[in-house]
Amino acid sequence: MLVSKLVCERMKEVPQDAKIISHILLIRAGFIKQVAGGIYTMTMPCQKMSLKIQKIIREEMDAEEGQEVLFPVVMPRELWEQSGRYSSIGQEMVRFKDRNDRDMLLGMTHEEAAVHLVNHTVSSYQQLPLMIYQIQTKFRDEARPRGGLIRVREFTMKDAYSFHCDNADLERYYYRMYDAYYRIFKRIGLKNFVDVKSDSGMMGGSIAHEFMLLTPDGEDSIVFCNDGDYRANMEVATSVIDKPSTKSDEQAHEIFTGEDKTIEEVCRRLGVPASKTVKAVVYAVKGSDELVVAFIRGDLEVNEAKLKKELGKNVVAYDGGISEDIVCGNIGAIGLSDKLIKVFDKSLQGESGMITGANKPEYHIAGVDADRDVGVDEFVDIAKAAAGHKCPICGGTLRVENGIERGNIFQLGTKYTAAMNMTVHGQDGVAFNPIMGCYGIGVGRAIGSIAQESNDEYGLILPMSVAPWQVHVCALRYDDEAVKAKADKLYADLTAAGVEVLFDDRNCGAGVKFADADLMGMPIRVVISPKTLAADQIEVKLRKEKNAERVALSDAVGAIKDIIAKELAALNA
Amino acid sequence: MLVSKLVCERMKEVPQDAKIISHILLIRAGFIKQVAGGIYTMTMPCQKMSLKIQKIIREEMDAEEGQEVLFPVVMPRELWEQSGRYSSIGQEMVRFKDRNDRDMLLGMTHEEAAVHLVNHTVSSYQQLPLMIYQIQTKFRDEARPRGGLIRVREFTMKDAYSFHCDNADLERYYYRMYDAYYRIFKRIGLKNFVDVKSDSGMMGGSIAHEFMLLTPDGEDSIVFCNDGDYRANMEVATSVIDKPSTKSDEQAHEIFTGEDKTIEEVCRRLGVPASKTVKAVVYAVKGSDELVVAFIRGDLEVNEAKLKKELGKNVVAYDGGISEDIVCGNIGAIGLSDKLIKVFDKSLQGESGMITGANKPEYHIAGVDADRDVGVDEFVDIAKAAAGHKCPICGGTLRVENGIERGNIFQLGTKYTAAMNMTVHGQDGVAFNPIMGCYGIGVGRAIGSIAQESNDEYGLILPMSVAPWQVHVCALRYDDEAVKAKADKLYADLTAAGVEVLFDDRNCGAGVKFADADLMGMPIRVVISPKTLAADQIEVKLRKEKNAERVALSDAVGAIKDIIAKELAALNA
Repeated sequence: MLVSKLVCERMKEVPQDAKIISHILLIRAGFIKQVAGGIYTMTMPCQKMSLKIQKIIREEMDAEEGQEVLFPVVMPRELWEQSGRYSSIGQEMVRFKDRNDRDMLLGMTHEEAAVHLVNHTVSSYQQLPLMIYQIQTKFRDEARPRGGLIRVREFTMKDAYSFHCDNADLERYYYRMYDAYYRIFKRIGLKNFVDVKSDSGMMGGSIAHEFMLLTPDGEDSIVFCNDGDYRANMEVATSVIDKPSTKSDEQAHEIFTGEDKTIEEVCRRLGVPASKTVKAVVYAVKGSDELVVAFIRGDLEVNEAKLKKELGKNVVAYDGGISEDIVCGNIGAIGLSDKLIKVFDKSLQGESGMITGANKPEYHIAGVDADRDVGVDEFVDIAKAAAGHKCPICGGTLRVENGIERGNIFQLGTKYTAAMNMTVHGQDGVAFNPIMGCYGIGVGRAIGSIAQESNDEYGLILPMSVAPWQVHVCALRYDDEAVKAKADKLYADLTAAGVEVLFDDRNCGAGVKFADADLMGMPIRVVISPKTLAADQIEVKLRKEKNAERVALSDAVGAIKDIIAKELAALNA
Repeated sequence: MLVSKLVCERMKEVPQDAKIISHILLIRAGFIKQVAGGIYTMTMPCQKMSLKIQKIIREEMDAEEGQEVLFPVVMPRELWEQSGRYSSIGQEMVRFKDRNDRDMLLGMTHEEAAVHLVNHTVSSYQQLPLMIYQIQTKFRDEARPRGGLIRVREFTMKDAYSFHCDNADLERYYYRMYDAYYRIFKRIGLKNFVDVKSDSGMMGGSIAHEFMLLTPDGEDSIVFCNDGDYRANMEVATSVIDKPSTKSDEQAHEIFTGEDKTIEEVCRRLGVPASKTVKAVVYAVKGSDELVVAFIRGDLEVNEAKLKKELGKNVVAYDGGISEDIVCGNIGAIGLSDKLIKVFDKSLQGESGMITGANKPEYHIAGVDADRDVGVDEFVDIAKAAAGHKCPICGGTLRVENGIERGNIFQLGTKYTAAMNMTVHGQDGVAFNPIMGCYGIGVGRAIGSIAQESNDEYGLILPMSVAPWQVHVCALRYDDEAVKAKADKLYADLTAAGVEVLFDDRNCGAGVKFADADLMGMPIRVVISPKTLAADQIEVKLRKEKNAERVALSDAVGAIKDIIAKELAALNA
């Protein structure tokens, strides 16, 4: 490909709105162009990269006996009514009426379509296990798309669905996919990634893992143990907190706290640490007028994902509207109206000498012993893990890092097959609902992740396996007939040898050419110029390395093919 | 791939609603499964076929210096306002509001997105010509989806857009694409196709060609000359009709025709042929209250596409509502209200002794000479060509055949670049709007077209280049250990040799296996059974041929590879 013809606008300036490095570089290198918020056109280099990633994903899915299919982007409401997700998924799912006034939607995920396909088509346990997958466009109407290809609204995704006779078989297959994901990420050149246990969210099901790229720009928080193997997405992370070794036998008694309402204000007034207070956080149940009060030790935060899972209900932060059942700022664990749903975190268990709201203005209750005074049926885990907490496995110290989700795998159980009445006949002739797993990787997000971790101050540094072109040839003084002849021949020879070449044939200065080559990040840069040709040589430099080497022009094709083979072998090792 | 695992439900029955052979066979072979009207899931065989077709299209587009990009499916209203198509395209375009209440749409075509990408990115005439293309999902909300993959709502399409300095350059490139289309259709195994001149419709622009698969089930009508090369889509076809050799000098005079209103009724009452009457057809201009009356010789039909082009307005058949300006059934060319737009077909020019409505109930006017009595500014061509008319080129006899559109190419001119203010600098430094061409092929429709023409009473007959698997191995008595061992080895050996094999490993009768193999249509069927193994042989049969031949098991891989190479060579010749 000739740079002079390539539709790809490079720019020096950092684009407005671009905050994270992958977004900045993909825009600056001309790989993507925004059409609307979270909606991009991919130019040739980006689409070539996408197709190479898709090829690697296909190979790994086919190796796990995947059957590639294609589900529709647009689906009818009726299909999603069957699983209950037509109403349970919020505004992130686009709904519209077709010209015949039928309700349609844009697919964000395809569990329903997968069950629709397999239902009736597969009728016997003998056909299981099986896995179907697709690589298809999806649309998710994110409220705040951002980060270039990291959080978009429209994206290309590989989504796979497996069907099994029993949990043990799902488990076996699930870990085959887990391994396949590691192979995929390694082959596309990602380095700094980990898998973490995660919440299955709107997918339903139990066990789930996310594959995370670790980066300070990530939106997800991941909890790690400094001393052991424990790691988990913040949404499901658990931790152990220090508990007092002795009990106080102080009795509960009201104290005047005036206008002091927050934990901070009350602690300052009374001269106690936050860990001696009971925090009350109010939530509203979505789509109902129920309120939930979550009680937790004052030095901890509530983990909303855990709270939702505990309640089996979707909750949102209470907007502080008027309710006769609560006294904002003085809500307390003792004597609160029974109309409210109350949840008590484990951090309160065994604590004594605590301060909680008195459920009336200007007063709190001190000397509270949660076990003795509150009458809690069950303490549950709704606490957010934090740096410095202890590891639930080994007791080591936890730390928190940021990451970007790169892919996810879920054990779904029978949520969809049961809801959609999909059965197959077992060996004993009895019909049963197959057990499902599902497995996703966003292709665009893979590109964003590579850009996020493989770069330097000059631009992208693309891995050999997914770079749009393997070699970027800069012909300096291309207006010189002798250079032109040799450069054209080198381009033709490399291309004929199966090497993918981006050839800078422009009549412009070396500085512009080198800056573009560094910005676009092809793994090998070749310079051919009057100077190198004086010695019948070219200059070859790996983008990721500092030093260039001279290679005889006559050996150029062989030498370049060797470098490519070595780089690819390292990624596939 | 093992048939026992393949998610693909074959059926014997002709499915309800399936009227044309490709629809029937693709459903019966389990290649597609309907999710909603005009919306299908493609199973593995169909998706494999789609990917093979996409690969061939990519190779041919890349050979024409195409740059593959990816435009978004979902686009913002603002982009389409720029070209004026947000309002000019009807209900076939899906529009919806996103969660932030912004108007969005699903792309049916991507001229706007192409100009958006190239605008600013390309700034000099030196970067032209260039072509960008994508292979992407599109949604077109057809009122009456039908015919399986022939007329769907959601489909995968290759759409390409070229940009040029002048018309001559566009013309050159246009015919390169024209040739590329012929190569693509030949390579994917289509036989019975032609290109025809066509109307550019909502695309705008001037010259356009469609590539048509000829089949009685086609929805498009194509006009052919029996004696020469002339061929055109009915929408743009012209024809020559017989004219009387003598003029009548009869004067115009009113005649009573009572309740007789249609051409047929009036002809019967007066004992004249339809060719002696003036037919008046009323149309309403879409989005306005204007009415159009098209006058044409009574034995001819109005071609709506030509009428629209002539008027530069979108018209629909008048619903017969009340208008004080027309007297339905008695509308005539003489004395009709000037509030109506009148269009006169060339067929009336030179005619005399004609009968037309009197624009009052129960009367017509006879003895009309169009040139003498009507006062026509211009006679234009709005007539529908018909079988038996004469060829406009050579005077030969025309015939009409049905076809399915397989792809199209358009010369767009500056319609989009001018509307969207896209300019580049010319050699003289003056900015100009580049001239565009656009070029589409539907991938799913390609599959439908292959199914439509390559089949027999038993099922599909797929071309080697696009068949999901090259070989369908039927292992008979697979429950026999000896057969199983040899069949498994054959499957492994073929696969290791790079042959794509669908392997029927089921424990079922030969009849079921042969019926499935014939229905699914892989190009080579191999039978391995106790009988063939008794002679250390297999049976090899081309799906398209009647007779099978025996091949020594030891020569199987080589023999099969030879057949594949021969078949592929024929398609690429």
